[in-house]
Amino acid sequence: MSYTVGHYLLDRLVELGVTDIFGVPGDFNLHFLDHVLEHEKLSWVGNANELNAGYAADGYARVRGLGVLCTTYGVGELSAINATAGSYAENVPVIHIVGAPGTTAQQQHGRMHHTLGDGDFNHFVRMAREVNYSVAILDRATATSDIDRVLREAIVHRKPGYLMVPVDVARVPASAPSTPLDVNLRLSDPEVEDQFRHAARDFIRGKKTAVLADIMTERLGAVGELNALVTSTGFPFASILWGKAMIDETLPNYAGIYIGALSDENTRRVVEEAEVLICSGVEFTDMTSAHFSQQIDSSRVIDLGAQGATIAGAVFAPLTIADALNIIREAATEVGALPADFSSILASDSSVEVSSEPLTQHQLWSLLPQHLDAKNTVVVDMGTSFFGMAHQKFPEDSRFIGMPLWGSIGYSIPALLGAAMADRDSRGVLLVGDGSAQLTIQELGTIIRENLNPVIFVVNNEGYTIERSIHGPEAQYNDITAYNWQKIPEGFGATEENSIILKATTSEELVHACTVAREVRDRLVFVEVVTDKNDMPQLLRDFGALVEEMHKKA
Amino acid sequence: MSYTVGHYLLDRLVELGVTDIFGVPGDFNLHFLDHVLEHEKLSWVGNANELNAGYAADGYARVRGLGVLCTTYGVGELSAINATAGSYAENVPVIHIVGAPGTTAQQQHGRMHHTLGDGDFNHFVRMAREVNYSVAILDRATATSDIDRVLREAIVHRKPGYLMVPVDVARVPASAPSTPLDVNLRLSDPEVEDQFRHAARDFIRGKKTAVLADIMTERLGAVGELNALVTSTGFPFASILWGKAMIDETLPNYAGIYIGALSDENTRRVVEEAEVLICSGVEFTDMTSAHFSQQIDSSRVIDLGAQGATIAGAVFAPLTIADALNIIREAATEVGALPADFSSILASDSSVEVSSEPLTQHQLWSLLPQHLDAKNTVVVDMGTSFFGMAHQKFPEDSRFIGMPLWGSIGYSIPALLGAAMADRDSRGVLLVGDGSAQLTIQELGTIIRENLNPVIFVVNNEGYTIERSIHGPEAQYNDITAYNWQKIPEGFGATEENSIILKATTSEELVHACTVAREVRDRLVFVEVVTDKNDMPQLLRDFGALVEEMHKKA
Repeated sequence: MSYTVGHYLLDRLVELGVTDIFGVPGDFNLHFLDHVLEHEKLSWVGNANELNAGYAADGYARVRGLGVLCTTYGVGELSAINATAGSYAENVPVIHIVGAPGTTAQQQHGRMHHTLGDGDFNHFVRMAREVNYSVAILDRATATSDIDRVLREAIVHRKPGYLMVPVDVARVPASAPSTPLDVNLRLSDPEVEDQFRHAARDFIRGKKTAVLADIMTERLGAVGELNALVTSTGFPFASILWGKAMIDETLPNYAGIYIGALSDENTRRVVEEAEVLICSGVEFTDMTSAHFSQQIDSSRVIDLGAQGATIAGAVFAPLTIADALNIIREAATEVGALPADFSSILASDSSVEVSSEPLTQHQLWSLLPQHLDAKNTVVVDMGTSFFGMAHQKFPEDSRFIGMPLWGSIGYSIPALLGAAMADRDSRGVLLVGDGSAQLTIQELGTIIRENLNPVIFVVNNEGYTIERSIHGPEAQYNDITAYNWQKIPEGFGATEENSIILKATTSEELVHACTVAREVRDRLVFVEVVTDKNDMPQLLRDFGALVEEMHKKA
Repeated sequence: MSYTVGHYLLDRLVELGVTDIFGVPGDFNLHFLDHVLEHEKLSWVGNANELNAGYAADGYARVRGLGVLCTTYGVGELSAINATAGSYAENVPVIHIVGAPGTTAQQQHGRMHHTLGDGDFNHFVRMAREVNYSVAILDRATATSDIDRVLREAIVHRKPGYLMVPVDVARVPASAPSTPLDVNLRLSDPEVEDQFRHAARDFIRGKKTAVLADIMTERLGAVGELNALVTSTGFPFASILWGKAMIDETLPNYAGIYIGALSDENTRRVVEEAEVLICSGVEFTDMTSAHFSQQIDSSRVIDLGAQGATIAGAVFAPLTIADALNIIREAATEVGALPADFSSILASDSSVEVSSEPLTQHQLWSLLPQHLDAKNTVVVDMGTSFFGMAHQKFPEDSRFIGMPLWGSIGYSIPALLGAAMADRDSRGVLLVGDGSAQLTIQELGTIIRENLNPVIFVVNNEGYTIERSIHGPEAQYNDITAYNWQKIPEGFGATEENSIILKATTSEELVHACTVAREVRDRLVFVEVVTDKNDMPQLLRDFGALVEEMHKKA
């Protein structure tokens, strides 16, 4: 077969670091999928449904820097569109390839399957425009340049991109890429750098300084520079929960997770009372700021973001976060900036007793991080696990993936699949409540099929606990269907050869399960964790009360 | 609590025949759901996820005439939007109630959870506009009139409608409806009726006449009139597969399912060679016409549709299908129209042998209808089951639900839930392949929880057979993850008290399973049916070849 548009697209994806494509087949993408199977550097990962494929590609992109899903037109793409919206909200570059009816068929406006029957073939691309940075309907004349445009913009802007590939366009002849795609378009201006250097020196000279770190630092590729800053200066640093574990939480100057009014008192004081606060990639959302309860005097702040930097409101742009962090690090040494006062943050509550009493949520979230391996990719859903893990110190090499802005429950199971495939050296650890797990449980089958051998904790506590924290703690709508969690894995392909199924109703059983998980690394370890229906982390209880207050005032 | 907009909306829904609301809770709809729980004529049916809730509401609406789902803003609504698109394509009125952030919060454009973080709260309503007939963002001043508008248009046009309910608007005071909502806006003009009567008399006088029936006859409320026409005149009638079993297939003048070039020869000749063909609510799609292979001479056709009637192309409107069918029935007697020649269609292949040999797809689809009860609601997915049941005669009181235009696999499990809840007197029978079942399998838990006791046949044949029929019969992308189907029901709550789990690998075992299903009516009967990976109904094989040909020419 001669070189085609389909080959071009796949070669570009491989060039950008992709080795796995997620999705579900449909008649409009089958021919394109032939190309995927033939490509020696690509694997096809068939998912149980398209929403799960979208979540998996998102989890993969958070680790690899780019993720890809492929679905069919209409039915497939719309099933995945909630995941794409999440990638947009959370700044994750995911490319959605949609196999579509041929150009001629579209021009005939027929009542074809997977259309609304009204002859309009552009309904879904208009919907895609709302949740993608850029969109292209590939045509025969401009397909390769449109591919380059959408891929480049997705990576540069850290947002999803959409490529509609009509069946005929995929097989149009094309030339292979002659040069790599330039995706390093975020630049600093030398003059702006000089101005920023001078202003930063004046601003931090002799000041007691602290750092607040958030996820955009990682998305914009500046974790190394941030790490160099906090290790060389000793500035105490707190993290936003969105960016938890991005910087090593075992460092002596780690000052905890800052959640506005719901922060630990020590953490709150470091952030709110430092003479200078360097905010690196910080984007406050209602969930991560306890409903915008942060108290930060902007006249004390150096703010580094995707759009450049500000010092007490004065703008310096274009200036990348990485360059700005390096300049601050050098300036801090030159002018003698000092670490802000802070009291060291304790590790996870080590006073928790291990017993045969019924397990509490406090025990659960305190004991888990103490009994897991150092090198893990921890994926949580937006419920008790997200809030439960907030104040727990993570080991040095761990990765934390949550979704606090978009907050779509059910995300974590497919995201674990994607994240674990993107880095097989870091074992996946999934923490999910039974309410969230129900939405996407079938992706457990794919996890088992792909031999990823993660550790999965499902908290069986009979319902949507995050909703109970907000409203209707005893209402029927917050109850869920009772699953038999001990039997679920077997249905989806777990056997004695590939899995161990455990149950923890006490802290003793939980610690035992963690021990088994550490020892057995060549099998899935699935742990059903039982806690009381009305038990929840204190942080979630406080947070739910805030949200309810907001709704009442709305 | 005083009477509010929330009460008004629910009272209108009850007035229109709704007693069950499907959905998933989220913090923006919890207060509204309090109203649902308090309403003595409404039940809340919590689903495992939002897409499933959308499919369930669609299945419910196909039986009841109106369905409702309620989700939260952003994450919830987008997860369900593929189901809404299906309701649009297939002319099913479903109301989607979205609990949204309060009016003030929206006006503040904050970076709130379940938003894209860009301060634009209208992304999702713009997406909803593409797949709903009408849309409203309820506000405090015009909420009740907007509710009436969206409900009326959904029912009149048989399309979905979207209501965004900000948390504050739901609790705004309102007056209860004073008069019923007028949804009977499809009218015939008396003068047009006269003109149509005269034209129809002239057109059918002494002519050999046949009828072709499709689903829009049912959507537009004219099944009774169509039934009267075919029984009183004896005109042979064929059905489009979309409208299968809408008219009793045991009538002596039933002439089979018309699928263009892939029709039975007897059926094809009745439809294509009658001197006059009355098309009632017929909308040819690529799936139901074997890619537009119908050969129908429009100069012989009386075509009755949502937009009025035509006789050999001459337009008569406004004229409802029901009125037009009554006029034709009277005219046929007056002018002596004759039934077109036809040979009676045989019942399902009764020559199929029952043996202990491995079960074939031909045996499966021939034996099933012979061994089920008379009064069933049969729900099929868009795969082997849809094509396999095409030529099988159904008992008099059965109902057939498929989704050939939108064709979203995974539809059938949640649709069965909805359809069975809408009419508990008609037992649900689900026919689904393993590929389709994986997408939405968790809704089995809701089916068990609601004690619907349907009969479920899952065809375990290792993949997407409909895709294999089109392209890549041995390709990896058409394989699926192997589930242990015997264990799946137990995971989702099946016990010996509420369920019987069977397996059929031979026709003997299949007939036994059907016997058990007929006898045990107070439990779920779940049957795993095993057929060979490459076996499929001949109709599907022929159909797949047509689609592949189309893609190659695209």
